[in-house]
Amino acid sequence: MLSEIVGMIDRFGVFLITSHVRLDGDALGSELALYHMLTSMGKEALIYNQDESPGNYRFLPGSDTIVHRLPALERYEVVFILDCSEMERLGEEALKIASMKRIINIDHHVSNGNFGTISLIDPLSSSTAELLYKLVHMMNVEITKDMATNLYAAILTDTGGFRYRNTTRETLVAAGHLIERGADPQWISENIYESNPPSKVRLLTKVLETLAFELDRRVGYMIVTRKSLEDAGALQEHTEGFVDIPRSIQGVEVSILFNELSENHFKLSLRSKGRVNVERVARMFGGGGHINAAACNMDGDIDTVKYRILSALKGLLLDQ
Amino acid sequence: MLSEIVGMIDRFGVFLITSHVRLDGDALGSELALYHMLTSMGKEALIYNQDESPGNYRFLPGSDTIVHRLPALERYEVVFILDCSEMERLGEEALKIASMKRIINIDHHVSNGNFGTISLIDPLSSSTAELLYKLVHMMNVEITKDMATNLYAAILTDTGGFRYRNTTRETLVAAGHLIERGADPQWISENIYESNPPSKVRLLTKVLETLAFELDRRVGYMIVTRKSLEDAGALQEHTEGFVDIPRSIQGVEVSILFNELSENHFKLSLRSKGRVNVERVARMFGGGGHINAAACNMDGDIDTVKYRILSALKGLLLDQ
Repeated sequence: MLSEIVGMIDRFGVFLITSHVRLDGDALGSELALYHMLTSMGKEALIYNQDESPGNYRFLPGSDTIVHRLPALERYEVVFILDCSEMERLGEEALKIASMKRIINIDHHVSNGNFGTISLIDPLSSSTAELLYKLVHMMNVEITKDMATNLYAAILTDTGGFRYRNTTRETLVAAGHLIERGADPQWISENIYESNPPSKVRLLTKVLETLAFELDRRVGYMIVTRKSLEDAGALQEHTEGFVDIPRSIQGVEVSILFNELSENHFKLSLRSKGRVNVERVARMFGGGGHINAAACNMDGDIDTVKYRILSALKGLLLDQ
Repeated sequence: MLSEIVGMIDRFGVFLITSHVRLDGDALGSELALYHMLTSMGKEALIYNQDESPGNYRFLPGSDTIVHRLPALERYEVVFILDCSEMERLGEEALKIASMKRIINIDHHVSNGNFGTISLIDPLSSSTAELLYKLVHMMNVEITKDMATNLYAAILTDTGGFRYRNTTRETLVAAGHLIERGADPQWISENIYESNPPSKVRLLTKVLETLAFELDRRVGYMIVTRKSLEDAGALQEHTEGFVDIPRSIQGVEVSILFNELSENHFKLSLRSKGRVNVERVARMFGGGGHINAAACNMDGDIDTVKYRILSALKGLLLDQ
C-alpha cells in the first residue's frame, strides 16, 4: 500500500488533505506533516478541516494555513483522508469529499471501513502519524524540523504521552529519530499539555467534585455540566484530559467523562487500562475509537445516560 | 569511568547498593536494575535504603528484597551510591557508608560533588538509569525483563513521562530498546501513574482550591497543609505530581508546591518550564535538584516561607 501511495504522490501535483471533526493531535499533526512533506517536494497542498483547531495545537508549524471552508474541489487531483475511520466523520462536507476521484485513506482505527482508492490501515500502529513517518521514509524526503515537530506531537498525543499499550519499540525509536530531526520534546509537551488557561484548572476543580464510582469501583466517572463550564468561564475543549483522572485511580478499569453538550445530549469519553475494550462499548452506541480510548454520543438525562453505559459496561466487566 | 566501573565489578563479588532519602523512581529503578545485573552475573548484592519505597514503586521487580536497616558492612567489598548528589542525602547512616573502602558514585545531578573512589557523573544524562543502561551495555550482560522494567520506570519518571527537556534522542531510543527487552510501557505507567488511592484524588480536590499566582502570574503555587492531608486520609507521598498542575497553566514559568511537613516546617517542590533554573533557587535554601525540578526545605510560617521563595524567584525572573 505504501508504494501505491508513493506512486500517487509522484504522479499528481495538487493535493487536498482532511481529517475528522473534533480534531485531536494525531489528526492535526498528521495532516500538517503531510502538508510539509508535499510542499517540500514542490507539490501544492491544502488542509481543509470542518472544525477549528483546539487552542493547544495552534503552535503546530503550518496550522495557520488550514482552511475551514471547503475550496472548489475541481483543482484537487487527490484527497488524503487521515485518521478518519469513516467518511461521515469528515463532517457536513463528507458527501462532496467522497465524490472526489482519487481518495487515499490512511488510518490506524480498527473500525476503519477501508474506503477510498487506496487505503493504508494498520490498527497496530500507535497513530496515523507513525504510518506517515513510514511514508516519509519511503519517499526518501528529508524530514524537516516542521515535519518532525508535527509527527512527534501526533505520536505523543495518540499514545497518551507514550503511556498507552500502543507504545511500541518502533514508536519510541521513531520519536527518538524525530528529536534528532529537530522536534523539541519539552517545547511540544509544554504547548500541548502545559498551556492550560486558568479557566481549565477552575473547571477541573469543579468537575473533580463529581467524581464517583460504580460496579465495585471498577468504573470511575466525572460529569461536566454546561453550568460548570459557564461558571469556570471554560470551553468544551478544556475538558481534554479530564477523563484520565478517574482512570488514574487504583482498581478503576474504565473511566467515563460525561460531557453535557446541550440539554439531554451528552458526549461520553471512555478510557480503559486495557482489560476492557472501550471501542466495543462505544460502538454499541454509534461511536468509535480504540481499545484504550473511545467516545460516543447519547441522548437522555444524565441518569438515563449513566444507566445505559453502565449496563453495557457491566456485561463486559463480567466477561473477564 | 565506565570501564573503571566494569573493572571493579569484575574484580569483586559482594556489593551494597544505596541511594538518597525520599526515594523516587530513578533512585529505585536504578538500584534494582543494578541489583538484577549483578545477581545475574552470579554476584551477591543487597539494596539498603533508609526510607521505605513509595507505594506506587513497590511493583518494581525485586523491590521486596530491599532492606531498611544497614547490614554489617564488613562483608561488602564495594558500595554503589546511585542518583545521590551528596553523601548527606543517604540519611542517618551516611557516615558509616562513607567510611567504606570502595565507593562507586553514579549520578546525573549537576551538583554532584564527585565523591567516591570512582565517580561517573553526567548532568546531560536524563537519569541515573540512562547511565546504568550504558553500563549494562558495556558489561555485555543480557538485559532481562526485570532489568528492562526497572530501567524503563526510572527513565520514565525522571523525564516527567518523557516531557522534560532532558529527553533526548538517546533517551527514547534506549526506552524503545527496553520495550524490546520486555519492559511493558502501559503496565509500568499504570502502576506508577494510574494506581492512585482515592484519597489522593480527594486530597487533590482540596489542594486545587489553594491554587494562586504571583509575580505577574509567572509563578503558580498550591499548598498542602497537614489538615488537608488528614481530612483526605492521604499520605505525604500522595502529593507526588501535584506540583505539575500549576506548571501546566499558560504563562506560568515556575510552579511551587508548599508541603507542610510539621508546624512551621515546609518542603518546597519547584518545577520550571526550562527558562528559570530552579536548581539554583533550591540551592540558595540548601536544597538541590535539576534545572526543571528541584526541592528544598524551609522553616517559618507559610507567609514567611512564601515571601522568601518569591523574593528569590523574583530576582531570577527579572534577569530574563
